[in-house]
Amino acid sequence: MPTVNENFLKLEKNYLFINIAKKVKAFTAAHPDADIIRMGIGDVTLPIAPVVIDAMKKGADEMGVKETFKGYEDSGAGYDFLRNAVSDYYKSFGVDVLPEEIRINDGAKSDCGNIVDIFGNDNTVLITDPAYPVYVDTNKMNGRNVIYADSNEENGFAAMPDFNVHADIIYLCSPNNPTGSVYTKQQLKVWIDYALKNNAVIIFDSAYEAFITQPELPRSIFAIEGAKKCAIEMCSLSKTAGFTGMRCGYTVIPSGLTFKASDGSDVSIAQLWGRRQGSKFNGVSYPVQCAAAAVFTEEGQKQIHKNIEYYQENARIISSTMEKLGIKYTGGINSPYIWFKCPNNMGSWDFFDLMLSKIEVVGTPGQGFGKNGDGWFRLTAFGDRDKTIEAMQRFEKLVAEIK
Amino acid sequence: MPTVNENFLKLEKNYLFINIAKKVKAFTAAHPDADIIRMGIGDVTLPIAPVVIDAMKKGADEMGVKETFKGYEDSGAGYDFLRNAVSDYYKSFGVDVLPEEIRINDGAKSDCGNIVDIFGNDNTVLITDPAYPVYVDTNKMNGRNVIYADSNEENGFAAMPDFNVHADIIYLCSPNNPTGSVYTKQQLKVWIDYALKNNAVIIFDSAYEAFITQPELPRSIFAIEGAKKCAIEMCSLSKTAGFTGMRCGYTVIPSGLTFKASDGSDVSIAQLWGRRQGSKFNGVSYPVQCAAAAVFTEEGQKQIHKNIEYYQENARIISSTMEKLGIKYTGGINSPYIWFKCPNNMGSWDFFDLMLSKIEVVGTPGQGFGKNGDGWFRLTAFGDRDKTIEAMQRFEKLVAEIK
Repeated sequence: MPTVNENFLKLEKNYLFINIAKKVKAFTAAHPDADIIRMGIGDVTLPIAPVVIDAMKKGADEMGVKETFKGYEDSGAGYDFLRNAVSDYYKSFGVDVLPEEIRINDGAKSDCGNIVDIFGNDNTVLITDPAYPVYVDTNKMNGRNVIYADSNEENGFAAMPDFNVHADIIYLCSPNNPTGSVYTKQQLKVWIDYALKNNAVIIFDSAYEAFITQPELPRSIFAIEGAKKCAIEMCSLSKTAGFTGMRCGYTVIPSGLTFKASDGSDVSIAQLWGRRQGSKFNGVSYPVQCAAAAVFTEEGQKQIHKNIEYYQENARIISSTMEKLGIKYTGGINSPYIWFKCPNNMGSWDFFDLMLSKIEVVGTPGQGFGKNGDGWFRLTAFGDRDKTIEAMQRFEKLVAEIK
Repeated sequence: MPTVNENFLKLEKNYLFINIAKKVKAFTAAHPDADIIRMGIGDVTLPIAPVVIDAMKKGADEMGVKETFKGYEDSGAGYDFLRNAVSDYYKSFGVDVLPEEIRINDGAKSDCGNIVDIFGNDNTVLITDPAYPVYVDTNKMNGRNVIYADSNEENGFAAMPDFNVHADIIYLCSPNNPTGSVYTKQQLKVWIDYALKNNAVIIFDSAYEAFITQPELPRSIFAIEGAKKCAIEMCSLSKTAGFTGMRCGYTVIPSGLTFKASDGSDVSIAQLWGRRQGSKFNGVSYPVQCAAAAVFTEEGQKQIHKNIEYYQENARIISSTMEKLGIKYTGGINSPYIWFKCPNNMGSWDFFDLMLSKIEVVGTPGQGFGKNGDGWFRLTAFGDRDKTIEAMQRFEKLVAEIK
């Protein structure tokens, strides 16, 4: 009989957002007339930009004509036209990343979850808490030792390393999901110094970089000196261009990034990852890659920024409600997430139930992201403008009632 | 310093088809005027059916309109419209598979490579040799013990189990890649009996089922009694509908399929796989799913079958050349692959080099699929008609010269 991977049995039975979906489903079954406003899962709501749709349709048409039909991609790492576009995009905010250091994928979640395959199971993994559940779950699936760096009210939910603690693999996310905090260049430099001192690798999730408006904040870890010696970066078009249902992202592995095998030889991380992907992935749909490339054109950037600004205005509406009510929060600027302290020191899941039952607004309980999230709550700015305003009106009333 | 997964270092440095691509590249660099005919990698060449392209464009248009925009898929397992279509497709050849037993993916290679994540590393894996390299590589990446069942000239390249040997995880592929052999119902029943006796799981790759023309041959392992107690099936639209560059497939896990955890409790394989996918995958692009669903419509089936028949005629042209030259082969009927014995008892790679240099035809050396492949060679029927005819004319000349 095959043994199963018993590490799975130690995980939470369901992925966080599946638990939330179940709770909401049960509530709507009991209250069929409920006018629920969803600000929980970080999903976008605006349609995809016209120039992107046109590019996808053109790509689809090419697949229907023998002369322009595309089969397997030779490398599986993405077409040159898209890797070049991503490289140019990095250049636009002053970061040098070569096209051959970029691999196109079907979304940051896949690479973020699968990258651990190329590392040993004996590594110590350091994750900031609270965090996107994928970092923790995918390492626990391999039975790795996970330790945490606390993000909390005191440090503005931007954990910094403890130089007395050793780690081999470090996960950072900035702008942060769920807390919306953004590391400064100086803070990231400390993390890089820590990684270099420990000979560790940083897996840097920059999925929300397009929401950064303050030019002094880094949009890529490769904006910081030393990062090419220790970091891998993962980004996605999900939030940048509404690709949550289109599925396209990219991973950057510096070509000089190497670690040692037990025999002392240098192992190229890009080559190891390429070998993994060569056997377990077959590239991204050609029309999707065409759509993604259109995001990086001048017209594409103009169109997607209109959407990003729409969400940023939602974020301002949510933040200013928190200000008005005197509720502590992080995020909202440079981030589509607003992370706030539950009123009356309530626990996250209690506040989730209260919000759902009293004002029919769905958010995400901070505890779902880790222990430091308890007592905190995440709202997203990815909703409809009218519904965001309506939700904040209901929220004000709720807070007035319970205070 | 992070340790790397050293199992990777024991693998062949490159995936087979990347090695072949490199050899061809070097040859064309040295011979820029070479008129190369590619019959190596099993990639299709006909464009995608019009009804499928239309469906994809319609799906793309929906993504550009707020009311019909689709973000994250709730389950990540595929939209109901597609899971229902796949279930109905199974019904059309007499196999009962429920929509909820089907998960949509971005191609069979991904699931085939990733499925091992949910099993322990202490399992013994049985793979027929020769085989699609992904089965071996992805298990060696986890350090699993791999044993082989020989497919050879004596058994018509259709390996059967040895009941004296124990295995926990078994890979079968029928119609077979690379040998083109197809298991009969009786043969598959023996494999199922073997799996049930060993309490093993069968991972059944049916990627080439659409090429089966003889109605008595099984197109799914679930056509055989007992399979729902031991098998997982993986299929793809890559060869069925030319989706190698579109990326869509599906995996079927019977809802009753369970194995025991070490504490004796039953573990649902579908649930375990769902948990894995929940953390490491985010669903298939919506317009791609729309395109895939169109494949299963009446018009879609009519259009794709015209393409399949075109490839089948190519297969007949290649097989009849082998017959004429008195060369032993398998496949060609019920399969897009022709697997033949290299003339003059040559080794596979020697014959590869000879074909490339003398007649500028690229095939795949049998040895690349395992030790029993040495001395054998794979050609695909997925090429252009004229080029297939031309390649066979060149091949006849070559064989006449060297005999």
